[in-house]
Amino acid sequence: METLVYRVSTRSPSDVTELEALFAEGALRPEDVVAVLGKTEGNGGRNDFTRELAVRSVAHVLGSRLGLDAAAVEDRVVLSFSGGCEGVASPHLVVLARSGAALLERRPAKRLAVGVGRTRAFSPQEIGRRAQVMETARVVQEIARELRLDSLADIHLVQMKGAIPTASFEEAERAKRGGTPLQNDMAHSRAASALGAAVATGEVDEQTVDDAAINARWDLYSSVASVSAKPGLLRTEIMVLANSHYWNGDFEIDHGVMRDILDADAVIATLARLGITFPGRPSPDQRERIVCVFAKSEADPRGSVRGKRHVMLDDDDVSDTRWSRCTLAAVLASIVGDGRVYVSTRAEHMGPLGGGPVAIVTRA
Amino acid sequence: METLVYRVSTRSPSDVTELEALFAEGALRPEDVVAVLGKTEGNGGRNDFTRELAVRSVAHVLGSRLGLDAAAVEDRVVLSFSGGCEGVASPHLVVLARSGAALLERRPAKRLAVGVGRTRAFSPQEIGRRAQVMETARVVQEIARELRLDSLADIHLVQMKGAIPTASFEEAERAKRGGTPLQNDMAHSRAASALGAAVATGEVDEQTVDDAAINARWDLYSSVASVSAKPGLLRTEIMVLANSHYWNGDFEIDHGVMRDILDADAVIATLARLGITFPGRPSPDQRERIVCVFAKSEADPRGSVRGKRHVMLDDDDVSDTRWSRCTLAAVLASIVGDGRVYVSTRAEHMGPLGGGPVAIVTRA
Amino acid sequence: METLVYRVSTRSPSDVTELEALFAEGALRPEDVVAVLGKTEGNGGRNDFTRELAVRSVAHVLGSRLGLDAAAVEDRVVLSFSGGCEGVASPHLVVLARSGAALLERRPAKRLAVGVGRTRAFSPQEIGRRAQVMETARVVQEIARELRLDSLADIHLVQMKGAIPTASFEEAERAKRGGTPLQNDMAHSRAASALGAAVATGEVDEQTVDDAAINARWDLYSSVASVSAKPGLLRTEIMVLANSHYWNGDFEIDHGVMRDILDADAVIATLARLGITFPGRPSPDQRERIVCVFAKSEADPRGSVRGKRHVMLDDDDVSDTRWSRCTLAAVLASIVGDGRVYVSTRAEHMGPLGGGPVAIVTRA
Amino acid sequence: METLVYRVSTRSPSDVTELEALFAEGALRPEDVVAVLGKTEGNGGRNDFTRELAVRSVAHVLGSRLGLDAAAVEDRVVLSFSGGCEGVASPHLVVLARSGAALLERRPAKRLAVGVGRTRAFSPQEIGRRAQVMETARVVQEIARELRLDSLADIHLVQMKGAIPTASFEEAERAKRGGTPLQNDMAHSRAASALGAAVATGEVDEQTVDDAAINARWDLYSSVASVSAKPGLLRTEIMVLANSHYWNGDFEIDHGVMRDILDADAVIATLARLGITFPGRPSPDQRERIVCVFAKSEADPRGSVRGKRHVMLDDDDVSDTRWSRCTLAAVLASIVGDGRVYVSTRAEHMGPLGGGPVAIVTRA
Repeated sequence: METLVYRVSTRSPSDVTELEALFAEGALRPEDVVAVLGKTEGNGGRNDFTRELAVRSVAHVLGSRLGLDAAAVEDRVVLSFSGGCEGVASPHLVVLARSGAALLERRPAKRLAVGVGRTRAFSPQEIGRRAQVMETARVVQEIARELRLDSLADIHLVQMKGAIPTASFEEAERAKRGGTPLQNDMAHSRAASALGAAVATGEVDEQTVDDAAINARWDLYSSVASVSAKPGLLRTEIMVLANSHYWNGDFEIDHGVMRDILDADAVIATLARLGITFPGRPSPDQRERIVCVFAKSEADPRGSVRGKRHVMLDDDDVSDTRWSRCTLAAVLASIVGDGRVYVSTRAEHMGPLGGGPVAIVTRA
Repeated sequence: METLVYRVSTRSPSDVTELEALFAEGALRPEDVVAVLGKTEGNGGRNDFTRELAVRSVAHVLGSRLGLDAAAVEDRVVLSFSGGCEGVASPHLVVLARSGAALLERRPAKRLAVGVGRTRAFSPQEIGRRAQVMETARVVQEIARELRLDSLADIHLVQMKGAIPTASFEEAERAKRGGTPLQNDMAHSRAASALGAAVATGEVDEQTVDDAAINARWDLYSSVASVSAKPGLLRTEIMVLANSHYWNGDFEIDHGVMRDILDADAVIATLARLGITFPGRPSPDQRERIVCVFAKSEADPRGSVRGKRHVMLDDDDVSDTRWSRCTLAAVLASIVGDGRVYVSTRAEHMGPLGGGPVAIVTRA
Repeated sequence: METLVYRVSTRSPSDVTELEALFAEGALRPEDVVAVLGKTEGNGGRNDFTRELAVRSVAHVLGSRLGLDAAAVEDRVVLSFSGGCEGVASPHLVVLARSGAALLERRPAKRLAVGVGRTRAFSPQEIGRRAQVMETARVVQEIARELRLDSLADIHLVQMKGAIPTASFEEAERAKRGGTPLQNDMAHSRAASALGAAVATGEVDEQTVDDAAINARWDLYSSVASVSAKPGLLRTEIMVLANSHYWNGDFEIDHGVMRDILDADAVIATLARLGITFPGRPSPDQRERIVCVFAKSEADPRGSVRGKRHVMLDDDDVSDTRWSRCTLAAVLASIVGDGRVYVSTRAEHMGPLGGGPVAIVTRA
Repeated sequence: METLVYRVSTRSPSDVTELEALFAEGALRPEDVVAVLGKTEGNGGRNDFTRELAVRSVAHVLGSRLGLDAAAVEDRVVLSFSGGCEGVASPHLVVLARSGAALLERRPAKRLAVGVGRTRAFSPQEIGRRAQVMETARVVQEIARELRLDSLADIHLVQMKGAIPTASFEEAERAKRGGTPLQNDMAHSRAASALGAAVATGEVDEQTVDDAAINARWDLYSSVASVSAKPGLLRTEIMVLANSHYWNGDFEIDHGVMRDILDADAVIATLARLGITFPGRPSPDQRERIVCVFAKSEADPRGSVRGKRHVMLDDDDVSDTRWSRCTLAAVLASIVGDGRVYVSTRAEHMGPLGGGPVAIVTRA
């Protein structure tokens, strides 16, 4: 199996010009596409319809080339868009494709491998609770097995879109009166998904994850999980990026954990592990090698960063999610020199409190 | 003359606890205070009343210690607050004080010198036009002379609050019908003020600055101007920071020009000129030496940064000024490790299009 | 010819469930559809992609039933979506259809007639100038002739999406330096379009409309124009609603002019002309008869409403367009008892300064 | 005792020009002032500093006339500012004063009476729980007794600023882990305060108000409570407006309950009870008699108003509190013809779900 990765710019949420060009030029075959991720220029919140518009547009392109309708495309390919291109964050698509047959023999170098899967459907009662954690962990491990990794430490990114089955106002009120209020919100779905990844990779002992730990025990976290959540989604969508001796291609991945949102050192160290070292800033040639950057941002809930007060959480005009994405995108782009970084926000159990994971794909 | 600089955190726009402590501890004498600058947590726009609240609070502290009423304090001390603490930007005050007599003899090392002044009152018709440029230049040079600089190249920051005399709706309509619409808006006042500084320092030839050049000839700019503008202000307030052989104290200043909002190299180079060099990030000791950072941000009006599209200028939910401040504060704070950076926004004729000046004060 | 009007609710910008139901139930034939207007839940500004999403969704429904691709649908049917459902304003679609042959004989009662057209393509230089006014007027009159009206006073709504051909940053800079800056913005396109309608209906003498009058002479206005503007649109789209003795169906239309945004009396008087009179509020039966309400809102540029200051124009957090839509939707909905009112914003030369036209369609 | 009421406009949150004029003209004596309420042009949320600025400005005026410092003024006079002047809502102050001695004899007509009080200090654990309800009820009844009412039905407005003692992040985490998470947020403080008023007036039986009922049993509500909440406030501030035979002056008050945010009928009926009846809209003379309007807005949590979907609760760009204030202010102002209406938001247990109380003071 060989992995292909492309990152292309978009001019609007519905723009597929450069994606079409990849197909037209023969650089990419539609049947090989496993996932299309993208950053779109909405607010990243509940009333962000740019994601739906982008999904429709990409599904239309793929569908017309594969002879499938939109629903069939979405069954076959992970289409995962994250809203919010604040500051220098630049709207773009990341296309992941794989081609060829499974390698029978182990190769000397590890290369980027990509696998995808979906959990079973969740009920609103399960979200943010142990049931969601364990089912998520099960699917992550299932995907990892298919990738033939030497070790779970070869997993560098578990990108998820967490399920949030909708409940009516009445159902929610009923559950509240019953004493076990629904947690089918974004924060809880993200938290349980991240802990699922942490359980899968062994970073967190499954025995420690009871309902009460979720969104409370901040010492428990994954270093590779990146979760968004989508109201109305019944099954969590999972994509695993790892390095495997049984995969081919030009790409490698590594990750680091930012201790806080300003932790440029973690990014510089991750680049170094991928062979990109520099004083000051990377050279243009080095920048060329950097293909994708994925990271999770978070406005530190304790209200300060490195001892200095921030006001992101007290702002009733603009969501802290937008400020933290803007901040992290700026930190990353000032290092890699390219605004096309996939930063999504809120990082419950993804890295330590106030920090978050960063994963980088480079040309080997 | 000896210059003193303090940077203190605030817990809200009206918080003066740490400022009071400086007086109580004897670290600072109220009669020495020349200027108090601050970043407050408003939106930085027209309906940002945090600046007024901060000015009142600081004026009250100074007034009660100096036995002056608020108006007399504002006549004596530059009180200049910039709204907008986005992302990791942390609300703080910068206090500049000077004490002692003028030095009669030139000293071997140059040290931070601070001077202040005000233009005459402008009419609404003058704003954004050559008259504003030339009067601003005159006052900057006047202040510079008092500081006894070797060269105008020793000026590293000209911090201004540009005048915007208010005109009524009817006056504006009348001017529009008369064919010379008023330009008494923030953009024009900032632009003319910055060009005034550029003319004063010799960066721009005063012959080239006619009315048509203002907010149009982007090749004309100052590397040291930093201007905000304030509707209702009749006289532009000007503060000049420079290095002088005739000043004493522990502080030095230098500046650089960021080519674009991601230009970390310019910041790293400025720190190097101040003797702070490092691989990766500065050490904790080096960070301690950094006392203040002043910079101007701007969402590149051409719609892209390093060839990658940004959407700051197409956002009708949040002002581009907020996104660009958030971005630049993140870039700076990720280098200096402290969110208390004085970033204000829109940088017409302050540095090149899309970029802007950065000035740093360090302990020598 | 018989006119059919339906107003249906939507659950999201892409929701076409109720539109599909009209076709499925046989209430509406796809080939009869002339226009689909809608309010979507975006911000109504530049980065509002809900309109594009809605257009795609409706075009897909119509296209699949008519055997046409999306582009062909958009050539055939006016699809005009206005973003911004603030406060009680409720997302909905208005479908206008016509069926049957042209009536040869004049009928005793006038009934709702609908006609559509498009201007020629405009250059960026023409927008906001007399050329745009005159071409708009020409097309409005052309449409009116087709509707066989007794008088131009029978026109009650000229709904337009004004063209804004895109110019590059460089073109705009060049024009500015050349002394005739481009006016290809929303405000100018709306203004010239509205004056075009006013010239067409005879409310404004075409001699008085020179370039300088546009967005300046507020005494010149149309009582029936309602214009939005769309960056990137080359040709202005125009729909005329009028009452004609040569049209059939169950619907009538009338209009009024609100003197200011609180002018409930104008709405009550318009309802009275349509035979709906009441003390206090309309009865449920009367409310049933009200099929559509169209109105233009505006934050009074003089900064007050009935002598009381408003702050809509000084708000850098939320656009005045959103506040004025929210306000007018509330005023209208508190009278008609239904949030599905088509309120769009900014009303240059549409009604007097601070006010705007309101048009109401009722079941006869 | 005689009650005086003035409503004056402000030009900014710190503007006290018209308040000063009342003193200067002798219309009002500083020692008679009981309360100054105001609407300021902030966002009404956590980062709204316009309230603090207004409080400081008014306290300064009163303090300099009474020879008191700011703290002493705030002990003596209720200074209660509500942020958020959306749409046509116009910034203003309402001054309530009382003068003269207590009347010994019952008078034939009831006149406006005003009383104020404060609860004891609350702990963070008590907020949103029965303890807060009962203490609030106790103080409301204490104030009512002082006003010498015939009946608790003569209470028409219980205006409160609910306490929210601050807890640290660690305290909140500890309480969460302990199983009884803190409810020291705005929603819970408002809810418990409103139920306190309902218990005091007898609208709600104190036996039914256990912890679980708060913010859950929406059938329990007060028709006269209007509560804002203020983080950091330890004691709830309470002002009661009622009609009493033992008070004098030119003013009367009455109230109604809006079933939903569009319920203009409830407003019209309340005006009728105060002797102001009209077809369509009140006459200018009638409008003159209307001195103050107080109301609570709420975006219906069920997501629709009169069966039509609203999107206020799904908007991540602008708070639903701002939309609902804008909406209710528009509804009220379109009836009374004046944007100076005191609308504050979120109405837990104040009127039925989605609705809220409205109180109107008129000149008798």
